[in-house]
Amino acid sequence: MKKVLILGGDGFCGWPSALHLSKNGYDVAIVDNLVRRKTDIELECGSLTPIQSMSRRLSKWQELTGQKIAFHYFDVAENYHRLLTLIAEYKPDSIVHFAEQRAAPYSMKSSWHKRYTVSNNLNATNNLLAAVVESGVNSHIVHLGTTGVYGYGTVQQVIPEGYLSVYTKGQNGDLEEHEILYPAAPGSIYHMTKTQDALCFYYYNKNDKIRITDLHQGVVWGTETEETRMDEALINRFDYDGDYGTVLNRFLMQAAIGHPLTVYGTGGQTRAFIHIQNTVQCVKLAIESPPKHGDKVQIFNQVTETHKVRELAQLVANKSGAEIRFFDNPRTEDAENELIVRNDKFLSLGLNPIHLKDGLLAEVTNIAKKYQHRCDTKSIICTSVWDAKKAVDYTGKKTAEGLQQTYQDSPTGDFTEMA
Amino acid sequence: MKKVLILGGDGFCGWPSALHLSKNGYDVAIVDNLVRRKTDIELECGSLTPIQSMSRRLSKWQELTGQKIAFHYFDVAENYHRLLTLIAEYKPDSIVHFAEQRAAPYSMKSSWHKRYTVSNNLNATNNLLAAVVESGVNSHIVHLGTTGVYGYGTVQQVIPEGYLSVYTKGQNGDLEEHEILYPAAPGSIYHMTKTQDALCFYYYNKNDKIRITDLHQGVVWGTETEETRMDEALINRFDYDGDYGTVLNRFLMQAAIGHPLTVYGTGGQTRAFIHIQNTVQCVKLAIESPPKHGDKVQIFNQVTETHKVRELAQLVANKSGAEIRFFDNPRTEDAENELIVRNDKFLSLGLNPIHLKDGLLAEVTNIAKKYQHRCDTKSIICTSVWDAKKAVDYTGKKTAEGLQQTYQDSPTGDFTEMA
Repeated sequence: MKKVLILGGDGFCGWPSALHLSKNGYDVAIVDNLVRRKTDIELECGSLTPIQSMSRRLSKWQELTGQKIAFHYFDVAENYHRLLTLIAEYKPDSIVHFAEQRAAPYSMKSSWHKRYTVSNNLNATNNLLAAVVESGVNSHIVHLGTTGVYGYGTVQQVIPEGYLSVYTKGQNGDLEEHEILYPAAPGSIYHMTKTQDALCFYYYNKNDKIRITDLHQGVVWGTETEETRMDEALINRFDYDGDYGTVLNRFLMQAAIGHPLTVYGTGGQTRAFIHIQNTVQCVKLAIESPPKHGDKVQIFNQVTETHKVRELAQLVANKSGAEIRFFDNPRTEDAENELIVRNDKFLSLGLNPIHLKDGLLAEVTNIAKKYQHRCDTKSIICTSVWDAKKAVDYTGKKTAEGLQQTYQDSPTGDFTEMA
Repeated sequence: MKKVLILGGDGFCGWPSALHLSKNGYDVAIVDNLVRRKTDIELECGSLTPIQSMSRRLSKWQELTGQKIAFHYFDVAENYHRLLTLIAEYKPDSIVHFAEQRAAPYSMKSSWHKRYTVSNNLNATNNLLAAVVESGVNSHIVHLGTTGVYGYGTVQQVIPEGYLSVYTKGQNGDLEEHEILYPAAPGSIYHMTKTQDALCFYYYNKNDKIRITDLHQGVVWGTETEETRMDEALINRFDYDGDYGTVLNRFLMQAAIGHPLTVYGTGGQTRAFIHIQNTVQCVKLAIESPPKHGDKVQIFNQVTETHKVRELAQLVANKSGAEIRFFDNPRTEDAENELIVRNDKFLSLGLNPIHLKDGLLAEVTNIAKKYQHRCDTKSIICTSVWDAKKAVDYTGKKTAEGLQQTYQDSPTGDFTEMA
């Protein structure tokens, strides 16, 4: 059996990926420090779905499938030596690296959150690469990046897969062609760390010939996969809060409980999307298509379609009758952008894209309805801001509390009591 | 008086910069955790010159000039809140950021050294930027980068100052011009952190409008400046060891003590150089030419000339009669490269370049001779390697110890006993 080590295997993408690989004949081991569950305590909010403890999850999985998944509880960004010995002893064929703080709004909440995101994400990535080099184990590293590294419309509308062909003028005036890493244009501290990761991959790949695949993933929607659906004890987490909730899931959940759909800014932002079932399939495809020794970093865009945020809101509103409400955008970003993202590589590897369609939208809505008693509506509005002034302008109060207050004081009502 | 905070003000560039600014009418405060002195303990090697304690340095400076320089002993990468309160209270007009691990070979010694360099450098830079944002103080940040961020010959021979004009093919086939950050091509973990810093600057500048100047400096040579020469108690550090010593200073020192000049690889590497006296002048010029609010990150190449390493060795050999000896290159890099670096920006600000010339070369030689009794010749050979295999191939021993052993066993003699 091929061995896969999954760093961050307790998270929203990590957990269903672990099950999908275990189901498909891989020997899987998970590393996680359970920080995402601990952050729920900080944010005073939890998964809408009743996720079970890791030991309950794993014992149920073994009961249902006969497959054993090992779990190692430590911090990849902190416990270097444990990571090194684990890689040296387990000798994984592939290591999937999800062990990063993954929410843009959370990374902007305060200086502490900026600093935590930078320190955690960059040290985790560097620790992993240093450990693979030091161990001498020839593991293929598959990393979850984001389409956000490209920015939105800074160089060209059609986003290639990782690399961009450019021309420069040589000394004699002739044009010379070069292939470069697509110029990075991060939109938050979180996105910044992913662009910095890319340089880390570039360097270790060049110097140490580490085989690396970087997956630039769009916004994930959906919550269940074939494997998590097998038993309620295996259910995946569902985040609906303003920091960790992803936009389409938030709309579906808001519609399910009768809350207005929360659109920040004009909703003219075009983003790339992918269903969680496709995410786990892509991770498996990436593992099975490693670059050859000496190849440069392999970059795949892990997306299936693009939409404007307000079009998604309209789609959900049309189905559900929900009201759409527009809020000041807490982010510093263009109000409107177009976006076309190439995804030829995964298509050529056989990915069957799951597009937005009634059945899967209904599944999310049904989950949201089933667990709506677990929803704390105070967590729905995003209170993280990209610029402290955004929280000050209206009320004179500093910090994000000001922004929250603005919404509550608005003439259209107090959302925190709507549900 | 304009106020300048110097992070890393005890180091090789930081200390003479602090004195130069103090001498020229600035109110200067230094932050340093004295890590460079502590690393001397780890490396079992110290400054060739007898640098004095910070309190002795500062009391002598006050005695000679009447100027008081404040010293704050803490770690910029660790002690965020102290940094924040210092910025909020002192309200510096400029902050010069030297607080990074700055030796490529040191960053490659082991996994620990890779991890320390990444964590220290990236957290220091991010802490500084987060603190400036949180404090609301409108400080201009001047950062010491390196010409190494450009790589050597990857895109074009003439290196512009930070930004590169490129053309891409639009959807209709027409060429569209864009200005992008010069594509990063780091050659060590140390250089990698500087390319990651650049993305950090890009992001905070875009999101928070922080005014930033990034100085891409060449290899520094020389040791004394007008101010450090005023009294022996003010003397600057001089590193001659294989990790921290810079190439020309190492050659001059080796010649002074009758050690063969140590050229790694063919010596065909072309690098950019600058004298330490020009370094401190550039830092002052940068402080006095801040970008305007809303301007993108300002990037200056801080170099005055380029040379091939073997040409420098030949120059020193011709003057001193020293032998040149070639060693296997511990780095993973091109054996030969050409390099032309634009430095128009500092020239237009009035920099008077100090080129390699007899007087200053002789000054370094004299210093090396004067303090040669402090030299430990065991530290001269570089034992850090970019690839563990380089240390294994010949002796079968793993780790850099193997490489050192190779040199000692070589038929040409045991350098550690030559002086």
